[in-house]
Amino acid sequence: MGNSFGKIFKISTFGESHGLGLGVVIEGCPAGLEIDEAFIVQEMQRRKPGQSKITTQRKEEDEFKILSGVFEGKSTGTPIGMVIMNTDQKSKDYGHIADKFRPSHADFTYFEKYGIRDYRGGGRSSARETAARVAAGAIAKMMLKHYGISIQAYVSQVGSLALEQSYQELDLSKTEDSIVRCPDPQKAEEMISLIDEVRKSRDTIGGIVSCVATGVPAGLGEPVFDRLHAELGKAMLSINAVKGFEYGSGFEGVKMRGSEHNDAFYQEGDRVRTRTNHSGGIQGGISNGEDIYFKVAFKPVATIMIDQESVNEGGDSVTVSGKGRHDPCVVPRAVPIVEAMAALVLADYLLISRTNKL
Amino acid sequence: MGNSFGKIFKISTFGESHGLGLGVVIEGCPAGLEIDEAFIVQEMQRRKPGQSKITTQRKEEDEFKILSGVFEGKSTGTPIGMVIMNTDQKSKDYGHIADKFRPSHADFTYFEKYGIRDYRGGGRSSARETAARVAAGAIAKMMLKHYGISIQAYVSQVGSLALEQSYQELDLSKTEDSIVRCPDPQKAEEMISLIDEVRKSRDTIGGIVSCVATGVPAGLGEPVFDRLHAELGKAMLSINAVKGFEYGSGFEGVKMRGSEHNDAFYQEGDRVRTRTNHSGGIQGGISNGEDIYFKVAFKPVATIMIDQESVNEGGDSVTVSGKGRHDPCVVPRAVPIVEAMAALVLADYLLISRTNKL
Amino acid sequence: MGNSFGKIFKISTFGESHGLGLGVVIEGCPAGLEIDEAFIVQEMQRRKPGQSKITTQRKEEDEFKILSGVFEGKSTGTPIGMVIMNTDQKSKDYGHIADKFRPSHADFTYFEKYGIRDYRGGGRSSARETAARVAAGAIAKMMLKHYGISIQAYVSQVGSLALEQSYQELDLSKTEDSIVRCPDPQKAEEMISLIDEVRKSRDTIGGIVSCVATGVPAGLGEPVFDRLHAELGKAMLSINAVKGFEYGSGFEGVKMRGSEHNDAFYQEGDRVRTRTNHSGGIQGGISNGEDIYFKVAFKPVATIMIDQESVNEGGDSVTVSGKGRHDPCVVPRAVPIVEAMAALVLADYLLISRTNKL
Amino acid sequence: MGNSFGKIFKISTFGESHGLGLGVVIEGCPAGLEIDEAFIVQEMQRRKPGQSKITTQRKEEDEFKILSGVFEGKSTGTPIGMVIMNTDQKSKDYGHIADKFRPSHADFTYFEKYGIRDYRGGGRSSARETAARVAAGAIAKMMLKHYGISIQAYVSQVGSLALEQSYQELDLSKTEDSIVRCPDPQKAEEMISLIDEVRKSRDTIGGIVSCVATGVPAGLGEPVFDRLHAELGKAMLSINAVKGFEYGSGFEGVKMRGSEHNDAFYQEGDRVRTRTNHSGGIQGGISNGEDIYFKVAFKPVATIMIDQESVNEGGDSVTVSGKGRHDPCVVPRAVPIVEAMAALVLADYLLISRTNKL
Repeated sequence: MGNSFGKIFKISTFGESHGLGLGVVIEGCPAGLEIDEAFIVQEMQRRKPGQSKITTQRKEEDEFKILSGVFEGKSTGTPIGMVIMNTDQKSKDYGHIADKFRPSHADFTYFEKYGIRDYRGGGRSSARETAARVAAGAIAKMMLKHYGISIQAYVSQVGSLALEQSYQELDLSKTEDSIVRCPDPQKAEEMISLIDEVRKSRDTIGGIVSCVATGVPAGLGEPVFDRLHAELGKAMLSINAVKGFEYGSGFEGVKMRGSEHNDAFYQEGDRVRTRTNHSGGIQGGISNGEDIYFKVAFKPVATIMIDQESVNEGGDSVTVSGKGRHDPCVVPRAVPIVEAMAALVLADYLLISRTNKL
Repeated sequence: MGNSFGKIFKISTFGESHGLGLGVVIEGCPAGLEIDEAFIVQEMQRRKPGQSKITTQRKEEDEFKILSGVFEGKSTGTPIGMVIMNTDQKSKDYGHIADKFRPSHADFTYFEKYGIRDYRGGGRSSARETAARVAAGAIAKMMLKHYGISIQAYVSQVGSLALEQSYQELDLSKTEDSIVRCPDPQKAEEMISLIDEVRKSRDTIGGIVSCVATGVPAGLGEPVFDRLHAELGKAMLSINAVKGFEYGSGFEGVKMRGSEHNDAFYQEGDRVRTRTNHSGGIQGGISNGEDIYFKVAFKPVATIMIDQESVNEGGDSVTVSGKGRHDPCVVPRAVPIVEAMAALVLADYLLISRTNKL
Repeated sequence: MGNSFGKIFKISTFGESHGLGLGVVIEGCPAGLEIDEAFIVQEMQRRKPGQSKITTQRKEEDEFKILSGVFEGKSTGTPIGMVIMNTDQKSKDYGHIADKFRPSHADFTYFEKYGIRDYRGGGRSSARETAARVAAGAIAKMMLKHYGISIQAYVSQVGSLALEQSYQELDLSKTEDSIVRCPDPQKAEEMISLIDEVRKSRDTIGGIVSCVATGVPAGLGEPVFDRLHAELGKAMLSINAVKGFEYGSGFEGVKMRGSEHNDAFYQEGDRVRTRTNHSGGIQGGISNGEDIYFKVAFKPVATIMIDQESVNEGGDSVTVSGKGRHDPCVVPRAVPIVEAMAALVLADYLLISRTNKL
Repeated sequence: MGNSFGKIFKISTFGESHGLGLGVVIEGCPAGLEIDEAFIVQEMQRRKPGQSKITTQRKEEDEFKILSGVFEGKSTGTPIGMVIMNTDQKSKDYGHIADKFRPSHADFTYFEKYGIRDYRGGGRSSARETAARVAAGAIAKMMLKHYGISIQAYVSQVGSLALEQSYQELDLSKTEDSIVRCPDPQKAEEMISLIDEVRKSRDTIGGIVSCVATGVPAGLGEPVFDRLHAELGKAMLSINAVKGFEYGSGFEGVKMRGSEHNDAFYQEGDRVRTRTNHSGGIQGGISNGEDIYFKVAFKPVATIMIDQESVNEGGDSVTVSGKGRHDPCVVPRAVPIVEAMAALVLADYLLISRTNKL
């Protein structure tokens, strides 16, 4: 279990960091969608290691192939199978940690769960798996675009350096201008300096990715357990290193009074709108047509270049030494992953909503 | 969709606030579990309206009946069907809002989604549905108890009044001593005063529920999409009025360096332990045997006794006036709901974990 | 697992033969459907024991209550919860078989699976559970009717007495005229005599129910594993006492040559039709717009009034003596159950088909 | 939907007949299973085209690669991704039928469902998809073998030529000795002659595959909708060209009296056995420890070398002429597919059964 996501627009991923390859099967993509492979490449590039000085310098080519489900440039309604072969499989690099549990990685828990683990690069627990999500998310985005829905994520915090503006006060079109993917140029510079400093001290740091979905029609979401924000929350919490999720007013909202927090309704043309949007575009688990926005907290990357105390499979005390090429901060590369997961949720709920009424 | 939760230990709820009744079907409860009905009653009492001066004075008897799945006091492995008949159905009370959209309720979104809605007391979107969850959660708790797992939630914040202690520094056995369910007696008094003041001003306020699960064995959780914390997050975000979820170091963790945040492993007898627990008992989505802890943010209750601007189904401007008996703050009654949902997730993942190895 | 059926239009049943009650939760019924309770009553009557001299004389009132999901006569899109309380719970009747395994019942297998079982009337394995299916099926039929789809089942064989006509050669409107539900009046008489004779010899006999669905649009069904006929087959095989399923040409079709069996296409107005219908209205798992027809084989009822060899839970040899009021042949009462399950499959696939294209 | 099968041991297939490749993702294979790749190759050979004079002479190499989920020869509990690249993609061969609906194929229904279709070799509806099933089934078989369960299928009928022996009266170890996979050498010769004659007349013919599972422990199966035989039935009906399924006494059982049909219980050592096995090893949807056996009816292959009447996408009358290399009878190659699907069902239910009791 646990390797599939979605109900109708559903993905199943497979693959380990250093196996032969990884991939994704997308079920339920409606027939007739034009598949723009160049766009998938572009999205993959945004997630790719080695894209800037503040990301890992590891090389992964991330070339995907679409094996099925697309005919003469269009989706056929059958499963879209995509594979990405692993070319940079330096397995030997991992000999030194083969039986050691790296602190705050999934080494120990996988071993407890399965009694066996592919220790190379974290195996299945590696964030490399998210390459498959980004590829699938690109297709979900194409579908959403067809319906006028767009999703934009950006870095709003690195360590204690936080944007003070709300998303409306930012020019999100500038997000990709900076290698840290923060739309405020000055804060972006500060964040880059901080990450650089952290990297030099052989350490890592956390951050927050914020995300906005616009153009979402009212009526998406399922009552009770599959509330739209519950599914978005699960989607985000399923990304490596995520520790928290909040939408709309979030944790700050708890301090407010109902009279402040409630979003008054008014009519604008033929549309019901709200004067404020503490609801974050979702009420009772169903979209209300306003912008959906949420935040995702990422912990500092667990792989550091500093010696750490640990134990091995035999229960002996050992020292884990950092080695290899790793990200000092995960959020710049997490931006497209957050967008991909949001796109997958919205594409799925858009299809589900077609079955609501007689 | 959206009315079921869980994969093996799975619940499906049904019922509206003012329909004939509501209920839950529990599938996958293992056979042979002693079902203690008195315990279910006790859990229901903790969620019940009218239990103290700081909760709604509405009367709901919440008497449940087990229709199936239990024979001679034990679960039989077949679905446990439970129903709670609604006795206090003052439908007429709702005539004044029949076609109005109450701000920050689900009235508008249900109408957009379904084109029809049971407006009485919020219909399906009412928190009354959580009675069914608490009943089911009580059974999940019985199962967990059998395996030495216990779950304790408590109120850690009301408005801006926040506990400063970590859960280890608190005496959680005192939680039920106070009507606000805060284990720190002094802070509890302050919280009660604040809620009382808010109630008198005909307003409402938000809060945070913290939760700890102890005795969880290492190895529970599924890789990738169904990470244990992702499922817990979804479970919590599916509770009415929840705006955020974080576990372990949470949003604060983003400010830390990897060298601070990482939890060093050491051997304690035959068990691998961690020196710190920023991971919140979960690494790579799988439990590591340490305590699992998380926080859930609740917004202020949307029903206030103050006039509010809105529109009706016809698009006319209207005033929504508060009426009826409502909670000024939801968190005291949310404590057993948070526990119930956590219990359901852990019971489910405990069963799933039996299938991991040959 | 195993107590739910369907993907979007989904039912979950609960309840044992002699528990407090049984019921069904219907998820995914589209909002806005007029719910005709009288029609549900009528369908329940067709399944009800004691309806004629050739069925069991057991009295079960089968009065259902709709607890949720219907407001002012229409479905609201939220789960429709229905309960049927058991009034005739003569549990004492079952003391004599409490620890005995009745031959060809589920007593032994439930005991092996769960280690505990509600032995009264077969518990969960009792065909009484199908009352919940018929109630849910009635609602599915209402939805199908709205879209011009109708389903008609009838008894085509009892023991070796088989109808020779195809369904097109029969007047299916006469099915309900005979207590055996065979549309050929003469064959119906013979069947009734046979069942009566079997009943007098304290024995039981098997039979076949045939079923036709008309008005099904082309394009329903999912490729590969969830082919429309595979889901229909599973639905039928899930009914108590069913041993086989075939559709279209069925087992006889294996004897044919491709040149005979293939259904030539031709154009009729704006519709593509087939000259013959060996495909049974389904090609590649997807409906082609022709009538869907299939057959369901029922074994003789396992409860006979003749002494039988068996063992008990302790492994001792015992004699099982028939007692109580049972059906000598299950097919007359199985007709509405077959229709109900077919209706549930088609309602579900109709909704799924809305998500196929952009 | 429709491209996944199973609940815990779950497969998802993708790929078209003439796309770049096809594959399968296996989730839920327990960790620690030794993966014997040579055995997978062997199973694929049994399904492969061109294996004898009575199968299609089409060449498909069917070389699979395991991309993930296996480490140092053992399953790791993570998804096993397998791909088979298509090398013999003679797309041009299909130009002549690009817009024509071949009778009794899925051309028309896919077009109705999706509005677009990959017409090359039937696209997704091609039996080539079953290569992925056989690969996955081989892994399920390895797991079953570990638990002492084996599955053997064989051809029991071609056209009207039917074996008269029950499976107990046959020497199933001889099945693979004949190219038609019938364990009775004399009948096998007759079947081969018949298929050869049919092939020469440019026609096709149907047949029946019988299957036996031995060593299945009592207690596998889920009550009500997911009865073991219902899931087996669905699995079989999901195979291309299948028209019917029966288990145990099957359609013949309807003619019997309960007193004949019931399987008396007796004690044999510490095991409860049945004197006869009309139940086919399954009672109330749960295995009882006796052999499970069932039959699967296959229609004649739809592709014949004879001209046929049809229409095209534009609604014009056309003639469809046979071309290419096709099987005159599908059953010899269907034997390993039936086994694979049976293995997948049993592996899945074996894992599920671990969750039944406290």
